[in-house]
Amino acid sequence: MLYFGSDYQEGGCEAVMRALLDTNLEHVGGYGEDPFCDAAKEKIKKACACPSAQIGFFTGGTQTNMIAIDALLKPYEGVIAAQMAHISLHEAGAIEATGHKVIELPAKEGKLDASTVRSYIEGYFADPFHEHIVRPGMVYITYPTEYGTLYSKKELREIRAVCEEYKIPLYLDGARLGYGLASDACDLTLADIAEICDAFYIGGSKVGALMGEALVFTKNNMPEHFLPLIKRRGALCAKGRVLGVQFAALMDVYYDISRHAIDMAKIIRAELLKKGYELYVDSPTNQIFPIVTKDFMESLEGRVGYGFWEWLPDGRAVIRFATNWATREDDVRALCEIL
Amino acid sequence: MLYFGSDYQEGGCEAVMRALLDTNLEHVGGYGEDPFCDAAKEKIKKACACPSAQIGFFTGGTQTNMIAIDALLKPYEGVIAAQMAHISLHEAGAIEATGHKVIELPAKEGKLDASTVRSYIEGYFADPFHEHIVRPGMVYITYPTEYGTLYSKKELREIRAVCEEYKIPLYLDGARLGYGLASDACDLTLADIAEICDAFYIGGSKVGALMGEALVFTKNNMPEHFLPLIKRRGALCAKGRVLGVQFAALMDVYYDISRHAIDMAKIIRAELLKKGYELYVDSPTNQIFPIVTKDFMESLEGRVGYGFWEWLPDGRAVIRFATNWATREDDVRALCEIL
Amino acid sequence: MLYFGSDYQEGGCEAVMRALLDTNLEHVGGYGEDPFCDAAKEKIKKACACPSAQIGFFTGGTQTNMIAIDALLKPYEGVIAAQMAHISLHEAGAIEATGHKVIELPAKEGKLDASTVRSYIEGYFADPFHEHIVRPGMVYITYPTEYGTLYSKKELREIRAVCEEYKIPLYLDGARLGYGLASDACDLTLADIAEICDAFYIGGSKVGALMGEALVFTKNNMPEHFLPLIKRRGALCAKGRVLGVQFAALMDVYYDISRHAIDMAKIIRAELLKKGYELYVDSPTNQIFPIVTKDFMESLEGRVGYGFWEWLPDGRAVIRFATNWATREDDVRALCEIL
Amino acid sequence: MLYFGSDYQEGGCEAVMRALLDTNLEHVGGYGEDPFCDAAKEKIKKACACPSAQIGFFTGGTQTNMIAIDALLKPYEGVIAAQMAHISLHEAGAIEATGHKVIELPAKEGKLDASTVRSYIEGYFADPFHEHIVRPGMVYITYPTEYGTLYSKKELREIRAVCEEYKIPLYLDGARLGYGLASDACDLTLADIAEICDAFYIGGSKVGALMGEALVFTKNNMPEHFLPLIKRRGALCAKGRVLGVQFAALMDVYYDISRHAIDMAKIIRAELLKKGYELYVDSPTNQIFPIVTKDFMESLEGRVGYGFWEWLPDGRAVIRFATNWATREDDVRALCEIL
Repeated sequence: MLYFGSDYQEGGCEAVMRALLDTNLEHVGGYGEDPFCDAAKEKIKKACACPSAQIGFFTGGTQTNMIAIDALLKPYEGVIAAQMAHISLHEAGAIEATGHKVIELPAKEGKLDASTVRSYIEGYFADPFHEHIVRPGMVYITYPTEYGTLYSKKELREIRAVCEEYKIPLYLDGARLGYGLASDACDLTLADIAEICDAFYIGGSKVGALMGEALVFTKNNMPEHFLPLIKRRGALCAKGRVLGVQFAALMDVYYDISRHAIDMAKIIRAELLKKGYELYVDSPTNQIFPIVTKDFMESLEGRVGYGFWEWLPDGRAVIRFATNWATREDDVRALCEIL
Repeated sequence: MLYFGSDYQEGGCEAVMRALLDTNLEHVGGYGEDPFCDAAKEKIKKACACPSAQIGFFTGGTQTNMIAIDALLKPYEGVIAAQMAHISLHEAGAIEATGHKVIELPAKEGKLDASTVRSYIEGYFADPFHEHIVRPGMVYITYPTEYGTLYSKKELREIRAVCEEYKIPLYLDGARLGYGLASDACDLTLADIAEICDAFYIGGSKVGALMGEALVFTKNNMPEHFLPLIKRRGALCAKGRVLGVQFAALMDVYYDISRHAIDMAKIIRAELLKKGYELYVDSPTNQIFPIVTKDFMESLEGRVGYGFWEWLPDGRAVIRFATNWATREDDVRALCEIL
Repeated sequence: MLYFGSDYQEGGCEAVMRALLDTNLEHVGGYGEDPFCDAAKEKIKKACACPSAQIGFFTGGTQTNMIAIDALLKPYEGVIAAQMAHISLHEAGAIEATGHKVIELPAKEGKLDASTVRSYIEGYFADPFHEHIVRPGMVYITYPTEYGTLYSKKELREIRAVCEEYKIPLYLDGARLGYGLASDACDLTLADIAEICDAFYIGGSKVGALMGEALVFTKNNMPEHFLPLIKRRGALCAKGRVLGVQFAALMDVYYDISRHAIDMAKIIRAELLKKGYELYVDSPTNQIFPIVTKDFMESLEGRVGYGFWEWLPDGRAVIRFATNWATREDDVRALCEIL
Repeated sequence: MLYFGSDYQEGGCEAVMRALLDTNLEHVGGYGEDPFCDAAKEKIKKACACPSAQIGFFTGGTQTNMIAIDALLKPYEGVIAAQMAHISLHEAGAIEATGHKVIELPAKEGKLDASTVRSYIEGYFADPFHEHIVRPGMVYITYPTEYGTLYSKKELREIRAVCEEYKIPLYLDGARLGYGLASDACDLTLADIAEICDAFYIGGSKVGALMGEALVFTKNNMPEHFLPLIKRRGALCAKGRVLGVQFAALMDVYYDISRHAIDMAKIIRAELLKKGYELYVDSPTNQIFPIVTKDFMESLEGRVGYGFWEWLPDGRAVIRFATNWATREDDVRALCEIL
């Protein structure tokens, strides 16, 4: 069986697992007050070229989004997101469960456009009854998007300009951040992201960690009393070390393991194009979305793991092959044979 | 430095760490749908002698409590707990953050008494305006309690009888469950707990796991659509395997590693009594609470890690020594020298 | 000044005010347990031809929607509504503040279509990951809609059929219900609405009451312990009589006072059409939406109260004239002169 | 039948009813933007000797408390209240439903003591793990209390001093404020209350209004965007005029109608003492709490409405006679005959 079904099907990368073992019996304090968390934070600050960054660690993406968004929004505010964004669609209403509306705007290939955002916010303020409408209090984007696409630096700066104009934060969900940064199509560094966004998270669960995400506030804007805000959502780990140890190790290899996933995805993409497959979205990251016939899709059963995306009106299907840090080149070659 | 400050200062026990390594590169499904979670569930069902048990895995105790309590309560219900219970005092309002009141009742050495609970509920229903009062919808207890004490089987059955009379569930917080079960003073088995309680959790974070708790519903009473209920609280792990692998390993050693902590605590307790220390609570589990002078407490600084509990009116202090699965006998002996 | 700005600019209709005065010094019980509330409920049951109807009174529409929707939904469910529906747009996120997502579907002239709803729900269940998506747990419609339009009996039955197929309730927001029922275009009775919907409310604040709405559950489906569910949202009136007295009086005149508003609106509509105005939506109820030039709109200032709706791309504006039970025919004639 | 069961058994006082009638057909704007609300606010500012006061109107006490407390607290904060306070016990968990803990402190005859409050807050900050505990973010008191008792100016100032020391607001629930201000035992004016408290509400539902409460922020501390905060809790009245008209009228008679209730209560109290009844609490306001035998209590059935309070260990009962603005002296005399 060849596994291309998702990018979270294995445990942690070697550096992470080794670090967990090496530090296992050291005695440290709880709740994130430990030298491993401190070390991880220092590495992240450095990688972000943001010495004043404030960082917290979480066990998953939905948790990170839920806490960051709830903590940054005022009670009467909502968060702007693309209609197909993770928080809009695939987090089981976690944002709404904290009492906030997700304001869904149309998007193309998963990407919000600065002009769409501006136009929405302008419309909000132009409405004489806008106090009866949920106030847009943040812009949420994903990088890479759910379709594997990337914002250019210019596009991000345009969205940031809207945020600055209306004094609302720009938050970036980086569940697959490494696979964005390591893409050939990426014109951004982690430092650029830290500069352009008010907060973002560096995804670990899908990029080499056993489990974990690092939330970064870059503008000295970590909400006051953030610890109880985390604790009251059940998200404060007694053994915060487990996340600190992982991120301290992960930051040393983050780009390299991500790049491996990109290299593997490029081989698959090239093979698909060579063989005449149509791509639903031409993603430059670790998710590849070929359009295939129903027969072909069925022929993969039991041999190749893939993600089903959607049926097209013509009866064909969009499927997804995902690579990650653990993808073996042999498996990629074997997949190419089958395609 | 000797570390007796808390029971969550190290990583995972050997069996857990080995299992994480051994399974690390196996490819499995996400969100708890994997063979490791399945295996862990089977072992838990067997240990509980409850083949119909329904089990979910979480990353921490507050998270587990918050989700279990919110999911089992109706919106207009609250949870009865001891005044000093973890959910009453030390979870930063996580239960209230889900919209439910914690109904705090007086308790002795951390233990609720069946008659106190019955009397409160009777009073509730006797009040002609009781619909204006939060309805008691569950009883929450900790085992061992925050003071290291244990309910006897008889005491638990009495509380259960009240719960049955009023048709509300009994929920047991087992953050340190192993240290209760392995105590000489324990007259309960895991199967007894499964029978007496409607739901409870087997603590891993403090008892050998790297991180994790196993929530067990024993009366075919897992709330419907529990997955989205978990997901909307940000508590569904994409890589559920990390918890499954740990619990599959942990269940094989749970009693033994817990017993080690008890053996270590017994040495400390015996030494304290021999040397004439007064105990604030005579705990039969892994937490020992001596009353010490301020001078003695200060003399420990830099040599012995301990937990500060409270000042007594006479100027002495209650402190806590905690052992766990990782406590080394050499360290215990060294502590005894110092006492 | 001629007042056509909205339908809630005056106090209560004569019957309501008289009843409040006549009963003012009678001594009755609190919290809706009084003979006036009982009498109002009996009249509503009769008007709905639904002897088993269960009824509660509230002080406003957002409050009624918020409580009804939250109480009928499970925590993991959301409510389907038209994109421009009141709960989607103009209630400041009140539904989300109770933790539920409003699932916004495209609509035409404010009306949801059964096929759109079915298609959405089918898509939900077809998605293998649908447990990660907010479950559609109710359909919310407004009658008349925010655009003054009406569903036909056939259209409502089609939506109900979808709801029945998926076993979810159909809820109708009747803030302006009287103005729907009294319209020439209405082919429904209150009894039809009671039969077709699982719950709905009879609007009073905009239709003759000083303040108040009557929420009706028609399928023996009032949520259990509804009183504390109301109380915990701050919506239980100590002096429930104030609402009961009004509705007991209002039910006797509801159709007649509503019909007056329709008669007045018909005169305005006819005059607009005669004079060649284009209507943005051809509403058969008490809200009329002419398209006017900016100059004309400005000429109304200080003479005629109207509601501004939106600018059209061609620079013209959509405005709204609203009539109600209190609209004077003289004022309507005067408005016609001005048009 | 003589009605002394509660103080909300009638409609509105004469001035309020007349004002509602007189203004009924005036056309005004919605949502509290109308000249009646403006006039009421001016009168309240004047009565409070607080020209900068910011005022909002609500339909009930629980609603007012819920919104004021939620809006003034940070998400991680709770509200300190007496154990028997209305928000602790009789509001069905409305505060917890907004996500905040009610921190219940022991109280005597319904009154919190400054030293109890200080001691609790000091203990909070002394705890090294206080970030795991709900932060005390406000002190809530009732005036008069649920037992009809009154704080002296000195007692209030002492509580205020604690609040100032810890920079948290003091909030006063004035559901029966008039009956406190008009009491012989009151040494406070409305201006004193406005000066000492950060926010409070002037109760109307129990003191002459048909329905309504006026929430007053006295330190330029109305929460930002208070309108959407109200709206998202379903508490914004489209016809805000109904509350404005009432309070504009009520402020002219508030003291006088309240004094009437006190005069009536004094007659009852004097008669009780003359006849040798013991008082459970010697309340100087409109609620009188005699201790009576079971036989006597039963003898009242069908003749005198009263409130049952509680059974005493000796088998006697505490009952309550409440007077209000509408209590007739003839009825009081008749009650005295029966006692």
